[in-house]
Amino acid sequence: MMRALTVIPGEKDSLNLLDVPEPPAGDGEVQVEALAVGLCGTDSEIIAADYGEAPPGQDYLVLGHENLGRVIDAPQDSGLAKGDLVVGIVRRPDPEPCKACAAGEWDMCLNGNYTEHGIKGLHGFAREHWRADAQAMVKLDSGLEDVGVLLEPTTIVAKAWEQINRIGQRAFFDPHTAVVTGAGPVGLLAALLGVQQGLDVHVFDIVTDGPKPDLVRDLGATYHSEPLPESGIKPNLLVECTGVTPVVLDALTCRAQDAVTCLTGVSGTGKQTPVDVGAINREEVLMNGVIFGSVNANRRHYDAGAQALAKADKAWLGRLISRRVPLENFAEAFKRRTDDVKVVLDLTADTDGGSSHD
Amino acid sequence: MMRALTVIPGEKDSLNLLDVPEPPAGDGEVQVEALAVGLCGTDSEIIAADYGEAPPGQDYLVLGHENLGRVIDAPQDSGLAKGDLVVGIVRRPDPEPCKACAAGEWDMCLNGNYTEHGIKGLHGFAREHWRADAQAMVKLDSGLEDVGVLLEPTTIVAKAWEQINRIGQRAFFDPHTAVVTGAGPVGLLAALLGVQQGLDVHVFDIVTDGPKPDLVRDLGATYHSEPLPESGIKPNLLVECTGVTPVVLDALTCRAQDAVTCLTGVSGTGKQTPVDVGAINREEVLMNGVIFGSVNANRRHYDAGAQALAKADKAWLGRLISRRVPLENFAEAFKRRTDDVKVVLDLTADTDGGSSHD
Repeated sequence: MMRALTVIPGEKDSLNLLDVPEPPAGDGEVQVEALAVGLCGTDSEIIAADYGEAPPGQDYLVLGHENLGRVIDAPQDSGLAKGDLVVGIVRRPDPEPCKACAAGEWDMCLNGNYTEHGIKGLHGFAREHWRADAQAMVKLDSGLEDVGVLLEPTTIVAKAWEQINRIGQRAFFDPHTAVVTGAGPVGLLAALLGVQQGLDVHVFDIVTDGPKPDLVRDLGATYHSEPLPESGIKPNLLVECTGVTPVVLDALTCRAQDAVTCLTGVSGTGKQTPVDVGAINREEVLMNGVIFGSVNANRRHYDAGAQALAKADKAWLGRLISRRVPLENFAEAFKRRTDDVKVVLDLTADTDGGSSHD
Repeated sequence: MMRALTVIPGEKDSLNLLDVPEPPAGDGEVQVEALAVGLCGTDSEIIAADYGEAPPGQDYLVLGHENLGRVIDAPQDSGLAKGDLVVGIVRRPDPEPCKACAAGEWDMCLNGNYTEHGIKGLHGFAREHWRADAQAMVKLDSGLEDVGVLLEPTTIVAKAWEQINRIGQRAFFDPHTAVVTGAGPVGLLAALLGVQQGLDVHVFDIVTDGPKPDLVRDLGATYHSEPLPESGIKPNLLVECTGVTPVVLDALTCRAQDAVTCLTGVSGTGKQTPVDVGAINREEVLMNGVIFGSVNANRRHYDAGAQALAKADKAWLGRLISRRVPLENFAEAFKRRTDDVKVVLDLTADTDGGSSHD
């Protein structure tokens, strides 16, 4: 048996640390010791019973999709060896895949019959050990032990940037100014990848203190706490990472000619806002604007994300992880603090509450 | 001197048939006899003084951007010869072009310093003769004499389809169902190009009689007079050709996974509609949706449009032209009739009002 952070899907506040069976061999050929699990809004939605699905025939779901582990044992021909740092890929295609999944593009799945570790039909990574096939995980540079848990959110922005750049190829494309709305972990990682591409990156958030403004500046980007329309900046590219209605509307309207906006923030619904739809449509047409949504990531984006992390400043990445909370103290991890950026569950910590990373 | 249909930009209802000077040699190396000019909403906006700009130093603007002409005289090395059918390209780059215009993509112009025949700073084609350089016009198949005036609106949808297909290449792309909203000339030509690509095309409009339903059916597409959400159709691709707010909103929300919507309709502005922006944003993200605007066309789209017209059924194309009005009777042409599709000014007609095409 091993410890695992679990919920009973559909049952509010059922979050609990349980002893569960060790992962069966059928889960995959590679045995992994979990090192860390990052927490995000999807985990909170699952805890609130708004989302989440247990594996078939089971009543609980092990939480955790942002992950980092170390290989305990792997077959010789797997490309992996004991001690390798690995990250499990969150979404897995159905055994009878749709055409997109069959092409390896499960992030574009056409029928919704995918599974997702820690979210939908597959146990997550917030447990001492897990297993998967080598093709369902990505090997990380050994220097990323402290920050490799950031790979999964990095894959989200790696996909966003890949699609921005591919969509840009529809016609003349010479971007220089990029805006990122929201300086949470996804926004900061979007800014990192924008700076790595040589773009002039501006990050917008509402806070004026805490770690975010300095994190943006230390990246070589510009931090703004005023709304985008007041800044006078008209970006060629925009990555929206908040899902907050007025910010989304600004992201659709304050742009240069031929601009490409990627929406990544999952909004709440049910609130009606008065909108001049005609004005937005007219501007979109006359300015050749593009707006697209992006969710999840496939192996190509895991590889791109791993490369982006490998060439980033490790100290800067480390500052994105504002708290490392031992698994035992999970309840504390979910209590939001104002200066939180990314909170990580530490699965290597002693059970007395000390963390090996603190 | 020659007859020309003119407006005084900024002066409402100044539309008038004037005697104006023959085009100067400086306008271009190729002399063209005008055959026809198609009318569209932009012409009405110019007549209403909502838009339009005379050439520098002149107080009137010759109207007409959708056009067809026949070469009277051309230099030997121009690739054109007397008798060739030609269409003048509407938008021309500034002599000091932006980077997009310099790359031949004046439809993506970054600074707005382009000119447009019959619209912005250049006389239009509603005059007996015009001149331009060979590179500013496109030669048409000689079989297109009766319908070549449809090329300009065809270029609009040729660009829309080109960008749809290029944007689709961002990821897995296997479209089969396309929706076109609006069965005006642009919508019908969008449907034509969709059918030519082998797509299952559904055209939505509100009318139940008149020529539109049959025009759609005779193309091998399906006509719908119910709103898109009621049809149950979830297209992979959508070309929005109305600019009408509720139709635009339907075009953003009734789609398959990974769908691409192209907006081509220029809306009126100033009307606030209550919209669940969060729901639209959330769906766009979770469904990997793309929405983009497309305006104008460059030479590549004129060439693609000319090819599309050349392989289309000429009789079907001819039915898009619901009225051919001699230039002398221009006032009649602008009086909207319920069964109008495309109204064309006939510049070859005798001054007594008979048309050589009737």
